Amino acid sequence: MTDYTPPLARLIDELKKIPGIGRKSAQRIAFHLLKTDQKNALLLAQTIVQARETIIHCSICNNMTEVDPCEICSDRNRDVSRICVVEEPFNIYSIEKTGLFQGMYHVLLGNLSPIRGIGPDELKITSLLERVRKGGIVEVILATSPTTDGSATAHYLTEVLRPFKIRTTRIALGLPVGADLDYADQVTIAKAIEGRTEMK
Amino acid sequence: MTDYTPPLARLIDELKKIPGIGRKSAQRIAFHLLKTDQKNALLLAQTIVQARETIIHCSICNNMTEVDPCEICSDRNRDVSRICVVEEPFNIYSIEKTGLFQGMYHVLLGNLSPIRGIGPDELKITSLLERVRKGGIVEVILATSPTTDGSATAHYLTEVLRPFKIRTTRIALGLPVGADLDYADQVTIAKAIEGRTEMK
Repeated sequence: MTDYTPPLARLIDELKKIPGIGRKSAQRIAFHLLKTDQKNALLLAQTIVQARETIIHCSICNNMTEVDPCEICSDRNRDVSRICVVEEPFNIYSIEKTGLFQGMYHVLLGNLSPIRGIGPDELKITSLLERVRKGGIVEVILATSPTTDGSATAHYLTEVLRPFKIRTTRIALGLPVGADLDYADQVTIAKAIEGRTEMK
Repeated sequence: MTDYTPPLARLIDELKKIPGIGRKSAQRIAFHLLKTDQKNALLLAQTIVQARETIIHCSICNNMTEVDPCEICSDRNRDVSRICVVEEPFNIYSIEKTGLFQGMYHVLLGNLSPIRGIGPDELKITSLLERVRKGGIVEVILATSPTTDGSATAHYLTEVLRPFKIRTTRIALGLPVGADLDYADQVTIAKAIEGRTEMK
């Protein structure tokens, strides 16, 4: 059997390195990039290079930004007394889309994970404590994912934040909106019952 | 709400142009490209550019290749009397993987599609007829997909090949291996019954 021509094989190999992109998807994307207008393919290559060259982490909250401090940290209309702690910069956009939170963010750039050798020193925890130590913070909202690692991180942060005597909250765990109780797992249902709220 | 920093927004927009990649996937890929080693991200950009610059269509069969004629067309061990007609270059690799076909290929670079305004002149049909006219061909295998457009293309090719009095065959339609009859659609079952073969 005949193999792909080498530049195509290399392109497929590079695409396969992206998590969630398997061999079939990598092939499909590679064939598309070869079939589409030359202009589009080169534009994609160029935007990857540009993004890598111009995007930095905000020195305050670690969000991805072109300017430092980032747009959120330099917005004077936001509530500087509340910090929402998230795992990754893209979590910020998910929360911003709700329009419900007007405070500041702090990106940990990961979660605690003993299995993968990620301890507190690998995360942006010292700078979070530094922000809280400076004063003026009334609440830290822990918005890490309800996974094993995310929950462990939330518990760890609760402990290290305890001496500051500020309000430390965790985003609610429960059934997602639109979910069918029949299909929900027992742990989620248990969390939904534990976290039940009064009907108003 | 705060939007993505412009270079990131542009990268997501470019990724969304790839068929099968929606907003969520584009975001996920973009974030990966920003999080991974700078080296990996730039290497992907570079392989896209290289692939576009070095890959050409074979002047005989229209396969994607770095050298012209392509590896298959210049392989003297293959059976030059049989041509397998496919829609796209990547179909060649799917057939090559079976190891069952030792003949030559001809890529149409598409299918007939009156709805999208693609007629015979937009496909590589003239060059196929030219190859057959030169003589030495005993069989043309029509391996276009069993879609409306692919079937129409196979029927059209059958007509234009008829004057050459060679064998024109179509790949079999039927149930895919491992499929459950319960879940197969009626048209497929009908084709499977029509195309039934003797048990040996």
